[in-house]
Amino acid sequence: MSCHEFDLINQFFKPLSKNLVEQVGIGDDGAVLNPPSVSTHQLVVVMDTLIEGVHFPLDTPPFYIAWKVLAVNLSDLAAMGARPDFYTLAFTLPAHAPYDKTWFAEFARGLAELNDLFDIHLVGGDTTQGKQLSLTVTAHGWLPKGSAVLRSGAQVGDWVCVSGTIGDGGLGLRAVQNNLNWPAAISKLNQPVPRVALGNFLRGRAHSMIDISDGLLADLNHILQASQVGARIAYPQVPFSADLTTFLQENAVPNKMWPLTAGDDYELCFTLPEAKFAEVAAFAQTTLGLSVTQIGHITQEAGLVVFDELEQPIEVESLGFQHF
Amino acid sequence: MSCHEFDLINQFFKPLSKNLVEQVGIGDDGAVLNPPSVSTHQLVVVMDTLIEGVHFPLDTPPFYIAWKVLAVNLSDLAAMGARPDFYTLAFTLPAHAPYDKTWFAEFARGLAELNDLFDIHLVGGDTTQGKQLSLTVTAHGWLPKGSAVLRSGAQVGDWVCVSGTIGDGGLGLRAVQNNLNWPAAISKLNQPVPRVALGNFLRGRAHSMIDISDGLLADLNHILQASQVGARIAYPQVPFSADLTTFLQENAVPNKMWPLTAGDDYELCFTLPEAKFAEVAAFAQTTLGLSVTQIGHITQEAGLVVFDELEQPIEVESLGFQHF
Repeated sequence: MSCHEFDLINQFFKPLSKNLVEQVGIGDDGAVLNPPSVSTHQLVVVMDTLIEGVHFPLDTPPFYIAWKVLAVNLSDLAAMGARPDFYTLAFTLPAHAPYDKTWFAEFARGLAELNDLFDIHLVGGDTTQGKQLSLTVTAHGWLPKGSAVLRSGAQVGDWVCVSGTIGDGGLGLRAVQNNLNWPAAISKLNQPVPRVALGNFLRGRAHSMIDISDGLLADLNHILQASQVGARIAYPQVPFSADLTTFLQENAVPNKMWPLTAGDDYELCFTLPEAKFAEVAAFAQTTLGLSVTQIGHITQEAGLVVFDELEQPIEVESLGFQHF
Repeated sequence: MSCHEFDLINQFFKPLSKNLVEQVGIGDDGAVLNPPSVSTHQLVVVMDTLIEGVHFPLDTPPFYIAWKVLAVNLSDLAAMGARPDFYTLAFTLPAHAPYDKTWFAEFARGLAELNDLFDIHLVGGDTTQGKQLSLTVTAHGWLPKGSAVLRSGAQVGDWVCVSGTIGDGGLGLRAVQNNLNWPAAISKLNQPVPRVALGNFLRGRAHSMIDISDGLLADLNHILQASQVGARIAYPQVPFSADLTTFLQENAVPNKMWPLTAGDDYELCFTLPEAKFAEVAAFAQTTLGLSVTQIGHITQEAGLVVFDELEQPIEVESLGFQHF
């Protein structure tokens, strides 16, 4: 319901955040707030809900459910350039099994692993009973005052870049749904690693940033709309994993845009001046073992155009949640 | 699932907040957190979920749904002694009607009225689709460092007090469910006014505090357990509204504990030294037009005992969510 949702937020909820001065409220990955006393840092707050059967398959093990609901929130903090600090968790459970102690122990283990990995902690929450399993996390982080990397900062001429590879989340979902053997892609679907260190390094270097949850094209389009610019993307430059490349070669996928629209990647998409690229790519490769790839550039002309190997534009039917 | 929930939180989730030093994590109404830089204030974060058919009747108008989900969170902040500042909202909507623009406009109006009343703002959130309407708010407030009024501070000899009247939320629910004409009680059910100003005044005056959401006895019991003390409550001193008194006289209610266990009051229950009572009661009456009533006192002996007019103990079958 992405378009409908944005309309609702803009029409009814954005006006409610009107008192924010020199801060960011509704309309970015997170909210940036000045502490009430003099401080060198700003608090960043993000919130994401995952629902069984909607955001993860019904038989997902509880370890991965916990990992994912926390990871997608940390990914939002990463996309702001924030250092995660603490979070709250609300979960709604159906009355029936399998929510026994083993289930909760596994669920808690998923949270604990991410807590250790990012030195964060759970500080509160709520538990309720309902018709389906639903989890909401509100995560909080900090960044130096005024340094948040927003969706609205893209400049004409910026390089458009992504971290890691694109489309593995979609392949992972396809594999789970059809019992196919693509373990790396399934792992990427179930246990995405939020790109926190890269997001932090991009403060002061990237002009704009977003994390890829709905699909590369849909999320890049949020940057374009917030920045009032366009982009030209070269399809052959979009980085695919070896597994995805093999899958695409072995299967007749009628819609070649599928990896760019499938979502669940939790990589970062950002724009920066050409002069900053080498430094960022070197940091990512050397320190994090993570690739950073230029896939296009920002244009004055509005719109998002994807070009194929022959530099012909590819028709983009729909930007997000496209299935093949 | 109150008892079950507490076990789960203690066993699996409380260990995850172990790194909190000189702060409050899981186990109180909210989390109190030091900003990372030197500051005179602490951030307080609370989170509550409301689900249709569970926490509010299915046909509740959207204005009241919005009011209530925000008010119950503000009530948690009030119970810590915090000044509310901002919040995030996650809502899950079923695909079917009646979630049209009118519905959302009314919903937003409910938020806006409380925003104006308490000078707070919405800063972010998430929207998803699911099987039933569910809303989660994470609300944030501030208080001077170290001044939070916790559940764990009750001292032997403290007076146990409540604001306002007890049992109207339960009468309101009964009226809605049976189409009875008790407008004041229905208004209290649908549009509770969080006792923020009183909660703030009680910083440095009350030893312990909680807001009454699950019922007076259940919530007071949280204070007793956290403080490792007991309490003696005088039933005749528990303040009932004129409407509730009339209702009880006109109807044969077999369980006289019903108003003390029905919940949805959103008044404050707190304990303080006898010497502080007059000052607090005068402030509440003069500044807020709100009554404050002593209903008992804290004892060294564990347990919660309620005494009737003849000072005989009344059997308490179950502390919370008791229906008549």
